[in-house]
Amino acid sequence: MSQVGKFIVIEGLEGAGKSSAIALVNDLIQQHVGQAPVCTREPGGTPLAEKMRDLVKIADETDPLCDEAECLLIYAARSQLIANVIKPALAKGQWVLGDRHNLSSLAYQGGGRGLMPLVKAVSDACLGGFTPDFTLYLDIDPKLGLTRAANRGELDRIEQQAIEFFERARQTYLQLAAQDDSIVVIDASQPIDKVHQDIRTQLQQRLPMLHHKA
Amino acid sequence: MSQVGKFIVIEGLEGAGKSSAIALVNDLIQQHVGQAPVCTREPGGTPLAEKMRDLVKIADETDPLCDEAECLLIYAARSQLIANVIKPALAKGQWVLGDRHNLSSLAYQGGGRGLMPLVKAVSDACLGGFTPDFTLYLDIDPKLGLTRAANRGELDRIEQQAIEFFERARQTYLQLAAQDDSIVVIDASQPIDKVHQDIRTQLQQRLPMLHHKA
Ligand SMILES: Nc1ncnc2c1ncn2[C@@H]1O[C@H](COP(=O)(O)OP(=O)(O)OP(=O)(O)O)[C@@H](O)[C@H]1O
Ligand SMILES: Nc1ncnc2c1ncn2[C@@H]1O[C@H](COP(=O)(O)OP(=O)(O)OP(=O)(O)O)[C@@H](O)[C@H]1O
Ligand SMILES: [Mg+2]
Ligand SMILES: [Mg+2]
Repeated sequence: MSQVGKFIVIEGLEGAGKSSAIALVNDLIQQHVGQAPVCTREPGGTPLAEKMRDLVKIADETDPLCDEAECLLIYAARSQLIANVIKPALAKGQWVLGDRHNLSSLAYQGGGRGLMPLVKAVSDACLGGFTPDFTLYLDIDPKLGLTRAANRGELDRIEQQAIEFFERARQTYLQLAAQDDSIVVIDASQPIDKVHQDIRTQLQQRLPMLHHKA
Repeated sequence: MSQVGKFIVIEGLEGAGKSSAIALVNDLIQQHVGQAPVCTREPGGTPLAEKMRDLVKIADETDPLCDEAECLLIYAARSQLIANVIKPALAKGQWVLGDRHNLSSLAYQGGGRGLMPLVKAVSDACLGGFTPDFTLYLDIDPKLGLTRAANRGELDRIEQQAIEFFERARQTYLQLAAQDDSIVVIDASQPIDKVHQDIRTQLQQRLPMLHHKA
């Protein structure tokens, strides 16, 4: 395995079904490549990045996290994950499967919070063109997604944002997906079997292409 | 006190003598304005920003903090401090006295780490032109400063950087001070009484100017 690995990302709003999609994509990659991918989640995925995630997720009423700090913490965590996990794995030829990556920041902090200039400035200066080889975006109406997520348990600080925040994030996801061939939109409002069938179809097309592109 | 407050910052390398300068400047402001300033330190100064500081200061050998994450954590902490402490105090007419602010990032992350493009992008996008009214930069040879700091106790992750890191930071401090009338350089290699005498002289000139500028 001298070839450099590939970086595949699953994106979507809360409750879109990313976690179960990841289990499926993990299996498909393993079948295809002969080795399970390194799985990451964002924000987080290294010991220090998980501590940054905690600061994003907790709601401190006496010291509410400002939008800029939220955005910068998420990029601090992403930089740490890329440097210490994603790039080393890819360099060893391993595939990496991400539960969220930079597209989440464009959608949530850029679209949702209205901080697109900050997001773009930090992305450009920090990521140096590093980008996933392929992204599956699970598209869902936030009302439906949040209902699913609420059934799992307590909502964290991000999940508690107003529905308009998620509507803006969704529009940004869709706009960016429309402009980028490496992002495929899956209708995640369908029954889970149909969602997984669509994912399987996409991956069966894409994996051989990715695999043979050096 | 209908007038908005002023923001004064003390800058310098490790062991330059910022902490004792702050005690003096605090007294001079109090005498001048009739009320003690709100004192802040960076990175830190709010409950969440102090947690970000901890992540910058600890040395984790299994997950070494990458330079970009260091930079972004510091700006996350700064955004939080400005939003929740500095701006609210200034708006109420209180003066604010800072132990470090943005100039430290230009010097340490920009000059020391070589990340000036990231630092400038984040400063511009995040701070929106917010800047101290007056900065005292305590200039010291890093060898002397680190010797003083080492006498205080264990060195943290930043203080353990190579001397060349601090040399680059010092050159950046001096270059930026030379271009900016609101930054005054104090020779902090002098005996502490002389350093304090120089600070007193500077503040006696500047405080009335600041105070009467609306
Ligand atoms: N297509 C679907 N139809 C119905 N329920 C679904 C579907 N996909 C996922 N679910 C259920 O919705 C809930 C949320 O799904 P999941 O945890 O995978 O979302 P997620 O995108 O990972 O959310 P988060 O971003 O909050 O982690 C789970 O209980 C899951 O079983
Ligand atoms: N002009 C001076 N001459 C000799 N010793 C000094 C002088 N100024 C400060 N010191 C001593 O040097 C040590 C470091 O000073 P201080 O803690 O004020 O530095 P600092 O700039 O706040 O450093 P840090 O950034 O690490 O907090 C202290 O023990 C202090 O008493
Ligand atoms: Mg999930
Ligand atoms: Mg000090």
